[in-house]
Amino acid sequence: MFDKILVANRGEIALRVIRAAREMGIRSVAVHSTADADAMHVRMADESVCIGPPPSPQSYLSIPSIIAACEVTGAQAIHPGYGFLSENARFVQIVEDHGLTFIGPSAEHIRIMGDKITAKETARELGIPVVPGSDGGVATVEEAKRIGREFGYPVIIKATAGGGGRGMKVAASEDQIETAFRTARAEAQAAFGNDEVYIEKYLQKPRHIEIQVFGDGKGNGVHLGERDCSLQRRHQKVFEEAPGPAISAEERDRIGRICADAVAKMGYRGAGTIEFLYEDGEFYFIEMNTRLQVEHPVTEAIFGVDLVREQIRVAEGLPMSFTQEDLKIDGHAIEVRINAEKLPDFTPCPGKITHYHVPGGLGVRMDSALYDGYTIPPFYDSLIGKLIVHGRDRQEALARLHRALGELIVDGVDTTIPLFHALLQEPDIQSGDYNIHWLERWLAEHMDG
Amino acid sequence: MFDKILVANRGEIALRVIRAAREMGIRSVAVHSTADADAMHVRMADESVCIGPPPSPQSYLSIPSIIAACEVTGAQAIHPGYGFLSENARFVQIVEDHGLTFIGPSAEHIRIMGDKITAKETARELGIPVVPGSDGGVATVEEAKRIGREFGYPVIIKATAGGGGRGMKVAASEDQIETAFRTARAEAQAAFGNDEVYIEKYLQKPRHIEIQVFGDGKGNGVHLGERDCSLQRRHQKVFEEAPGPAISAEERDRIGRICADAVAKMGYRGAGTIEFLYEDGEFYFIEMNTRLQVEHPVTEAIFGVDLVREQIRVAEGLPMSFTQEDLKIDGHAIEVRINAEKLPDFTPCPGKITHYHVPGGLGVRMDSALYDGYTIPPFYDSLIGKLIVHGRDRQEALARLHRALGELIVDGVDTTIPLFHALLQEPDIQSGDYNIHWLERWLAEHMDG
Repeated sequence: MFDKILVANRGEIALRVIRAAREMGIRSVAVHSTADADAMHVRMADESVCIGPPPSPQSYLSIPSIIAACEVTGAQAIHPGYGFLSENARFVQIVEDHGLTFIGPSAEHIRIMGDKITAKETARELGIPVVPGSDGGVATVEEAKRIGREFGYPVIIKATAGGGGRGMKVAASEDQIETAFRTARAEAQAAFGNDEVYIEKYLQKPRHIEIQVFGDGKGNGVHLGERDCSLQRRHQKVFEEAPGPAISAEERDRIGRICADAVAKMGYRGAGTIEFLYEDGEFYFIEMNTRLQVEHPVTEAIFGVDLVREQIRVAEGLPMSFTQEDLKIDGHAIEVRINAEKLPDFTPCPGKITHYHVPGGLGVRMDSALYDGYTIPPFYDSLIGKLIVHGRDRQEALARLHRALGELIVDGVDTTIPLFHALLQEPDIQSGDYNIHWLERWLAEHMDG
Repeated sequence: MFDKILVANRGEIALRVIRAAREMGIRSVAVHSTADADAMHVRMADESVCIGPPPSPQSYLSIPSIIAACEVTGAQAIHPGYGFLSENARFVQIVEDHGLTFIGPSAEHIRIMGDKITAKETARELGIPVVPGSDGGVATVEEAKRIGREFGYPVIIKATAGGGGRGMKVAASEDQIETAFRTARAEAQAAFGNDEVYIEKYLQKPRHIEIQVFGDGKGNGVHLGERDCSLQRRHQKVFEEAPGPAISAEERDRIGRICADAVAKMGYRGAGTIEFLYEDGEFYFIEMNTRLQVEHPVTEAIFGVDLVREQIRVAEGLPMSFTQEDLKIDGHAIEVRINAEKLPDFTPCPGKITHYHVPGGLGVRMDSALYDGYTIPPFYDSLIGKLIVHGRDRQEALARLHRALGELIVDGVDTTIPLFHALLQEPDIQSGDYNIHWLERWLAEHMDG
């Protein structure tokens, strides 16, 4: 139904959307900054419009320029990719006010999930498990003990007015709670002039597990299992896999159903990701991302679906092309993020690509906007490619990743490729035994950064 | 169990095998001619040995050089790829006499299937359908008519001593058989001094349908469905797909079971392909290829298996890693063969690759030994790459092929890429309505070659 869509993004995700559009017979419009005139997304789109200079506020974040680009080219819909304007409710409203279609959820759903407190309340109302906590301040040691027994130890006591770790104490058992409670209150009083504290269950070594969901905006919702994205550096994911090595089929079904039901109840439209911390068989809601995720290809690999095509379909008002019953997991997939960064301290490393060679063969997917001779500009995110492998099982996927990384050549700039070669040597990575702290600890031990 | 294998081939298929070996933790040895010193398979293997100059009889076909390369490097097994020595029974015997393992079937099976007459007899004995024909000469018009009624018209009358089309007449109905029979005999007598003729069912517009089979050499055999490879130019396949657009699930099961049973009965080891002509719901045996086929990736795509890994496994004496029940078709795959050839007459076009860019994204696999700056030598086959796409259905696969071809850049030499752009515009290709004559006719109409 759309003849032409505009892609309000750059880099590999702009390419990703242009590819899906082309396969659907939809013309694509790229927008670009003056720094991106030679970028691959501009070369590959059917049309392109320059929307201003770097940095992003003057171009990729400039709502009037993007709306104008739609009007000039006659694009009927906008795909925002991830980042930039993808979770900006005001942008969605403006898009719709101009009679254009936003390829994503409603402004209201973006707004609700964009606010952490509202998001958590909404999640709880929808039956999504959240971290158990005292609803409000805890006034006495006896109440603290009662809560500790209810949630199970360890618990964390936090200043209501707090932040930055002050007024924050962990109690590993009931023995410790009285001291922890009194210390936290004292610190809170000293730091914030307010000694009110609250208590939450404390997760010691959780995994980051996120559930891919999809809704048609008309009351139907499905889940596409989980991704384990626990390997993070400074809250940036670097290695993602699906299925999660620690998640059983029963756990997947249970949390997946809850999430699919929530999406259906919300009347959510398009792709979304509900993020959890996971420990000891329990899931605890963190947040919901109301957009396509960088790591969506691992889900596409194991379910054999095209999530961007699906986003465009439901934005056109079509039903989803799959039901929950159609969605069966086939094998195992891993994505690694190739960043133009210099190790050991991950300094961004823009510059000219003097030689680029991508891995090929069975079970290998490369999503990248690089080409031989391309100059990576210094203004944007350092992600320059995603290498995704798919195998019949986790062991085959790991072996394939090792093989494919060995074929990948990105000369001219430093990249994170050596990090992945090193990680694949680690027994914990081979066995899948890691959590959200693992990579930071490993980096501290193995790199000076 | 193997520590190291030698790959007795070059180009993309050598890479294919090296990749599988690497993923299995097996070291690989490349052999190469002096013309291939800079070839990708040499760069990617763990070790390499120069085995002589071009042309191939002095290097890739030199059995002593290849055996010597095994001895020098300590390789325990040889993967022959396709072409070259892959179906040379004498080579297999020599390999085994040297205490090495040939990754493929036994010398005996290669010998049986290498002889067309023995192959056809063996096929018939194994219950594989062959083209119905008079068993031997036909002496009278009455006998000819009886056979015509038995097989159904049209039939073809051929000189027993014949060849080159002489003494060969088609009878479309019983009205025509007397004239055809007498004319064929007269022509046979004139041309060969022998008027004996035989009769076969005549297929007017068959498809080339081949069944991928796999055996463990111990009496177990499976099939992995069919590939439709009808689009051929001078008996060279250019476009292959699976499943075949004309083949029903019932037909697949029926012919697949027959082929799997045949492989089991033979005690066949490894990958093989049983080729058929197919018309009006019936399959007619042509030949069996006792090796990996160029177009094996389309089968890998829809079944999610690694056929080369499987070949290596059974050569090691391990059981197959799948049973017939495990093998379920998922979606649709198409391969196109990118040749360094100049259209319209497909003249080989070796030379230097000045720019090479491969397509990426979902459902795209590129098997190629090209790299930027590589010079294609003039001594070998003109196949320089295989682009394989996988989609949820045929329509998605075609759309993906169109998109991926648009991204593929091979500068510096002429290639067959424009042929595929043109073919994708054809309604018959879009609908899957083609047979083994289609491409030759289309080329005659659309190209002057």
